[in-house]
Amino acid sequence: MKVAFIGLGTMGAPMAKRLLEAGHELTVHNRTRDREEPLSALGARRASSPAEAARGAEVAFTMVGDSPDVLDIILGEQGVAQGLEEGAVVVDHSTIAPAVAREVADALRAQAAWLLDAPVSGGSEGAHRGSLSIMVGGEASVLARVEPLLAVLGSTITHVGDSGAGQLCKAVNQVVIAGTYAAIAEGLTLAMKSGVDVDAVLQAISGGAAGSWGLINRGPNMIAGTYPLGFRTRLHYKDLGIALDAAAEQEVPLPLAAWVAQQELGLIRRGFGDEDVSNLARVPREAAGID
Amino acid sequence: MKVAFIGLGTMGAPMAKRLLEAGHELTVHNRTRDREEPLSALGARRASSPAEAARGAEVAFTMVGDSPDVLDIILGEQGVAQGLEEGAVVVDHSTIAPAVAREVADALRAQAAWLLDAPVSGGSEGAHRGSLSIMVGGEASVLARVEPLLAVLGSTITHVGDSGAGQLCKAVNQVVIAGTYAAIAEGLTLAMKSGVDVDAVLQAISGGAAGSWGLINRGPNMIAGTYPLGFRTRLHYKDLGIALDAAAEQEVPLPLAAWVAQQELGLIRRGFGDEDVSNLARVPREAAGID
Repeated sequence: MKVAFIGLGTMGAPMAKRLLEAGHELTVHNRTRDREEPLSALGARRASSPAEAARGAEVAFTMVGDSPDVLDIILGEQGVAQGLEEGAVVVDHSTIAPAVAREVADALRAQAAWLLDAPVSGGSEGAHRGSLSIMVGGEASVLARVEPLLAVLGSTITHVGDSGAGQLCKAVNQVVIAGTYAAIAEGLTLAMKSGVDVDAVLQAISGGAAGSWGLINRGPNMIAGTYPLGFRTRLHYKDLGIALDAAAEQEVPLPLAAWVAQQELGLIRRGFGDEDVSNLARVPREAAGID
Repeated sequence: MKVAFIGLGTMGAPMAKRLLEAGHELTVHNRTRDREEPLSALGARRASSPAEAARGAEVAFTMVGDSPDVLDIILGEQGVAQGLEEGAVVVDHSTIAPAVAREVADALRAQAAWLLDAPVSGGSEGAHRGSLSIMVGGEASVLARVEPLLAVLGSTITHVGDSGAGQLCKAVNQVVIAGTYAAIAEGLTLAMKSGVDVDAVLQAISGGAAGSWGLINRGPNMIAGTYPLGFRTRLHYKDLGIALDAAAEQEVPLPLAAWVAQQELGLIRRGFGDEDVSNLARVPREAAGID
């Protein structure tokens, strides 16, 4: 298939590479152009703008930072929409506001093209392995057309509703992570301060009703007080902001997510924004005088 | 082995039954005496007091409500300690304050007997099936002696430290459950209010970093707005109180657990204390105008 990939960062580059290796005819573009070179060396065509990348592509993938970036690379002056052919599909893997996803979908529909909002979870490791979880909003029939491509990138592809629903699902994911990590951090802090065998406690509670991915995969780092990536606190804070805005639009109070977001802002201010978000454990640890 | 079991409630009765069925010579006692009858019909001897039940027993199990109950049935006038022989072991499965577990252990040690604090998780279903998780504080050598008996009751037996450590571990378990459930409740409320396919959202996020026992096993009930047991909110509130007191003793601030405890108090006041603790979802649901 003729495909384009725009946005070759930590996530985008390995995703584009997987599409190329799966045998697709790939054109790439990145704002910082030299990031196109490794993929070019593997056989991808380079394009000087998102519009040029999209020209002739059946599917154009985008993976950038935030809502304004998506508006710019899709609907901007040299944006994907300028080069997109009728019937083509844009798959946006960025994590952005659900309302912006709906806005972009409407704009593309007006020129007989399609948007799927398809944020992912699973980190850069998942991007390399093709084991991402992809949450998709948009037309089911459009998803069916591109599903073989998404299967190259992710092991779980879930259609959660109309345009914006993929983003909403990602927002829910980040809200649940926020409070779950904060809860794990408090519990382990109590254990650490109490002179019990903390590793044994972790072992004892992981299999029951307190068990979670975070407890098993991030608990040991919280106990050690080291927070290797993972997923950056600065990005989780950005995503929580999207979630809180989306919730506020619908008058859904999320006091726990808001409280965790404030803790993350404090961590970012102190220079810890590029650690893994499990560094939320710094807050109760330091309050308890550990460290 | 000659064993005693004192406290034949929802948890204690099926645990005692398993010990009997495993071939042990069992004496039972319960404050409300007629609860002894079903076990008596199966071959257990009845005792008129904890002291009498403990007489001649190598191991005496206790499973009652809270710290004062444990102090009374073990150290009280007709308590287990009055009948206990030298070298005998008391295994207390109640969830109580770590400091009280240490106090009881000290008192028993003075008469050459032993306490293991061994609170459990896994609910009445785990008690029936013998699949409880048992968190044990006390001497490792004493645990080794009674481990064959505990294996009749639980599938995971973890030694977490000295006297009180089992209770501390249970406290950590309840602290982690508190915030995790609150986080799930917020996330699912956002999903419900947003018109996406909530079941698909649950499916999409369960396998990743937001995944937890609570999300998978209680998420569907939170979406349905029904809270079958499970584990009662009133008991979780009691356990959080123990955890917060133990944390306060060591000057460990647990703002998230404290906040969830206040929500649970509100639910109990409104008459929802005997629902499952996943009814924490009532709080964000109602704030968002769902129901």
